[in-house]
Amino acid sequence: MDTPLFRLRKLVRNNKLDAVLISSHSNIIYLTDYSGFSKEEREAYLLITKNKQYILTDGRYTQAVKTLIRNFKLIEISSKLSFEKAIKQLIKKHRIKRMGFEGNNLTFLEHKKLSSRFNDLNHFSLNNLRAIKDEKEISEIEKACVLSDKTFDYILKKVKLGVSEKEVGNEIEFFIKKFGADISFRPIVAFGKSSAIPHHVPTNNKLTNNQTVLLDFGVKLNNYCSDMTRTIFFGKPTPEQKKMYQTVLEAQERTIDLLNTKYSILNTIKASSVDKVARDYIISKGYKTIPHSLGHGIGIEVHEAPHLSSKSKDILKVGMVFSIEPGIYIPEIGGVRIEDLLVLTKLGPKLLTHSPKTIIEL
Amino acid sequence: MDTPLFRLRKLVRNNKLDAVLISSHSNIIYLTDYSGFSKEEREAYLLITKNKQYILTDGRYTQAVKTLIRNFKLIEISSKLSFEKAIKQLIKKHRIKRMGFEGNNLTFLEHKKLSSRFNDLNHFSLNNLRAIKDEKEISEIEKACVLSDKTFDYILKKVKLGVSEKEVGNEIEFFIKKFGADISFRPIVAFGKSSAIPHHVPTNNKLTNNQTVLLDFGVKLNNYCSDMTRTIFFGKPTPEQKKMYQTVLEAQERTIDLLNTKYSILNTIKASSVDKVARDYIISKGYKTIPHSLGHGIGIEVHEAPHLSSKSKDILKVGMVFSIEPGIYIPEIGGVRIEDLLVLTKLGPKLLTHSPKTIIEL
Repeated sequence: MDTPLFRLRKLVRNNKLDAVLISSHSNIIYLTDYSGFSKEEREAYLLITKNKQYILTDGRYTQAVKTLIRNFKLIEISSKLSFEKAIKQLIKKHRIKRMGFEGNNLTFLEHKKLSSRFNDLNHFSLNNLRAIKDEKEISEIEKACVLSDKTFDYILKKVKLGVSEKEVGNEIEFFIKKFGADISFRPIVAFGKSSAIPHHVPTNNKLTNNQTVLLDFGVKLNNYCSDMTRTIFFGKPTPEQKKMYQTVLEAQERTIDLLNTKYSILNTIKASSVDKVARDYIISKGYKTIPHSLGHGIGIEVHEAPHLSSKSKDILKVGMVFSIEPGIYIPEIGGVRIEDLLVLTKLGPKLLTHSPKTIIEL
Repeated sequence: MDTPLFRLRKLVRNNKLDAVLISSHSNIIYLTDYSGFSKEEREAYLLITKNKQYILTDGRYTQAVKTLIRNFKLIEISSKLSFEKAIKQLIKKHRIKRMGFEGNNLTFLEHKKLSSRFNDLNHFSLNNLRAIKDEKEISEIEKACVLSDKTFDYILKKVKLGVSEKEVGNEIEFFIKKFGADISFRPIVAFGKSSAIPHHVPTNNKLTNNQTVLLDFGVKLNNYCSDMTRTIFFGKPTPEQKKMYQTVLEAQERTIDLLNTKYSILNTIKASSVDKVARDYIISKGYKTIPHSLGHGIGIEVHEAPHLSSKSKDILKVGMVFSIEPGIYIPEIGGVRIEDLLVLTKLGPKLLTHSPKTIIEL
């Protein structure tokens, strides 16, 4: 059966490895379905050999692992059995000669400790392990998107004179959490000039008349993320703001058109060429280039492969889920960004977020 | 003046380095006071030479950096100027021969990329840079603790028959966020048997009569964290539960007594000897050892130096802020943990969290 573990073992075989050490929070979730470990601290590792799989963690998680993680043998790390010692024993037991690890996750010091005991340690990027989603994953992301759309609809009622960016951010969070879901990242809420800062952190600034309101937020549901941005106007947008808005919207539509036409012929397309369409269009209208990539893959992490940027070497394929989020930002004036999620199906791109994109004036 | 930057430069000099590359989210906050970068992705670096300091980040943050970060020169990373190229230019400009980096933060691949351009790259642990807090920092943590106590007082009213763990967790979050603060980690709310899992993730399980309720949560205010655990009883605790509770409480009190006596003489004490007092006491009462360390330093990160564990080599000193959190966990029965924050002052340990610790029966 084509499970995440199966997909990983295929990679292991293709790389001629005997085993692989998994350390990243997201790949541990992908392979075990368990999301209880800290995202910030190293609390667990997986060791996957050709036919066995182990989870190494400490006594705080013994009960949780026994109850919630199937198919993995638990090795309990303690003051008597260090992680390094446990790995050494497993290496001996399974006669592991070539072990892969996540080079973009293991720290320099962790690697140093391991490699001092282990000659043939290969770094082994798993970036693309999760890039193509299966049906179950797409359906989870779709559910998260449905709740995003609901949240946007709800939050429009909360955008009122005198409300602060932080308060709107909190309302987004509370609404999402009341559904038993989580946020996929701290919501970005930017009023007026602050909308020119792509990753603005909500402040106590209060909404006044005739301000842009940029809302960028996501839902995490059953470990899968959504991500969406809308820019609305509290009051009447100026002609310049309208032009910015239409340019961003048109840039987004042109990329979707490209996916619909070019992609449909071969079922693959270069991520960089998608980025280029939106970027070139925005520049052609006299604006500066987008100060970020056009989009990013999404799944267990809110940003993951594929990367839709000018330098990306990724190829977009059926089963990939990613954002398309062009933006224009003018310092001291304001910004506009519109972001949706899409999945590539055999029939072409399919939008997963459906909130309205006609100019909203509140 | 004794600023974080001053403290870092002292470390740089003591390590005979020409410069240091800062990559961790927490040290970037410590040195710049800016917390807008992603915690999960690499979005910025600092390069600190003997007399200059640079911040390297991309266009998404240009506006924020210009407005909010003083004293740092911005180097904008773009498709034309990669991070590696920018670093190379700075190395040349400042004739840097020996550069330190955070070995427990930089990944294997990041280090590999850098070291290929740079012979004398030293890993340079900054773990202890933030261990001793200054007055301003202690006052920030104290404020976070005040809000924790308020939250505990409030949440007692929300612990009712039929409420779910997730709902109580959300109430904790919403209350904290309404004060403009953030949570320092996802609250742990565990009913009944689940309290035997030290890091239980809240579920939809509903509260029934005669269940233990374990609450472990923290506040983040102005970038500084608090952390507190209380275990209460919904209904009457059994004699066995009462004994567990009293044992944990006594274990905590004994460590505080030790800090009051031994520490007061020399103003230093081994972290491991503090851990030992609580651990030995719990074992002496017929329970298993604590399946985690007795406590941890806290500040910008919820877990940072010093570490209060049996293996710790840390020495506790004036200005350190840390938790004391003994616990007993019996699988399929339940658990008890009591956690408070303390700061070591010249006069001895001072409690920062003040919520009641007599047995609470709701």
